[in-house]
Amino acid sequence: MAKLRVHNFSMSLDGYVAGPDQSLEHPLGVGGQRLHEWIFRTRTGRHTILGTEGGETGIDDDFVARGLEGFGAEIMGRNMFGPVRGPWTDDSWTGWWGDEPPFHYPVFVLTHHPRPSIEMEGGTVFHFVTDRIEVARERALDAAAGADVRVGGGGATIREFLRAGLLDELHLAVVPTLLGRGERLFDGTDVAAQGYECVELVASASVAHVRLARTNER
Amino acid sequence: MAKLRVHNFSMSLDGYVAGPDQSLEHPLGVGGQRLHEWIFRTRTGRHTILGTEGGETGIDDDFVARGLEGFGAEIMGRNMFGPVRGPWTDDSWTGWWGDEPPFHYPVFVLTHHPRPSIEMEGGTVFHFVTDRIEVARERALDAAAGADVRVGGGGATIREFLRAGLLDELHLAVVPTLLGRGERLFDGTDVAAQGYECVELVASASVAHVRLARTNER
Repeated sequence: MAKLRVHNFSMSLDGYVAGPDQSLEHPLGVGGQRLHEWIFRTRTGRHTILGTEGGETGIDDDFVARGLEGFGAEIMGRNMFGPVRGPWTDDSWTGWWGDEPPFHYPVFVLTHHPRPSIEMEGGTVFHFVTDRIEVARERALDAAAGADVRVGGGGATIREFLRAGLLDELHLAVVPTLLGRGERLFDGTDVAAQGYECVELVASASVAHVRLARTNER
Repeated sequence: MAKLRVHNFSMSLDGYVAGPDQSLEHPLGVGGQRLHEWIFRTRTGRHTILGTEGGETGIDDDFVARGLEGFGAEIMGRNMFGPVRGPWTDDSWTGWWGDEPPFHYPVFVLTHHPRPSIEMEGGTVFHFVTDRIEVARERALDAAAGADVRVGGGGATIREFLRAGLLDELHLAVVPTLLGRGERLFDGTDVAAQGYECVELVASASVAHVRLARTNER
């Protein structure tokens, strides 16, 4: 059965998935980019995101690659599609990713702001969902047509799916850095009560990768 | 110069260092013992704590052993010495560890309850400090006579030392388990602002070990 999965979601050692004071200048919050530097050091990350050659292979690269495989649609929160206090309620904003976003499949953006779908180059179509996350899940699973659905983030969206028990798998990349302030993934979210367990721990010299999965079905 | 160090302090993936509802029956909180099981699987842990042979060698065992070396005194919180709601204000409580505690050096217990020192078998002396943590630190450093001082825990005590910037090194064992509720190490503690950084990441199949140190002196 098709799954909802999160991959390569980075968290600081003190539990933050974004820095404080998110804005157009700092979409990941102040210092938040430090959480993602490991991805840009990998071969797959460099190739996929930057379009450049080189980069490291090994454990981190394997995880980045795994996080790109088997998906037919994506769900993301409003703050991942556009800046928190930004220009996109005027409908001219088409995401951070230029004319040809790297998704190449339907992307369902959770928002309170209804808006017509946008067809981008390369197969990415942005749909705007003002319904509950259960509805977004159904629509994305339909669109994925048997493939898995990636839940892209950000933190608030993943928290919402975790709380509802609607996420099947969560790959967290615990980065040995301290942000001190910001947005936390596990605040107000009792993932143990929702039946999630850690099913894998593997670390490189830079990142500890942990996979969570729901082991007891509700 | 002698240091204040924390070693083998276990934290769940969701940031908890003790489970909820700490009591005489559950001194580590409900489910909290899961954070420490890895220690009992190591050779050094089994030998030191249980007095039994066997156990695993390797990364985890190396960290447990490192956490026992070079100390001349210890500081611990009231809740590590006795139960949260327990019998020890009547002065008959002498700790969890029997007649011969495994410390074999002076131990300074932070408490609001003044009490005469207790000399145990094997060199352990419990002193009760009602002063500020800065005073406890001075007394412990004096008693250690050039060796390091171990800050044993629990979470509240370590948080207090972190916030005051008085801890030189913190070895966290991130255990791939989820507690969901309980006591968190980093709540209300901006360790980044205090100048702490992660200086090491090494993982076994069971535990991700991270060392924090203060890199910029205040």
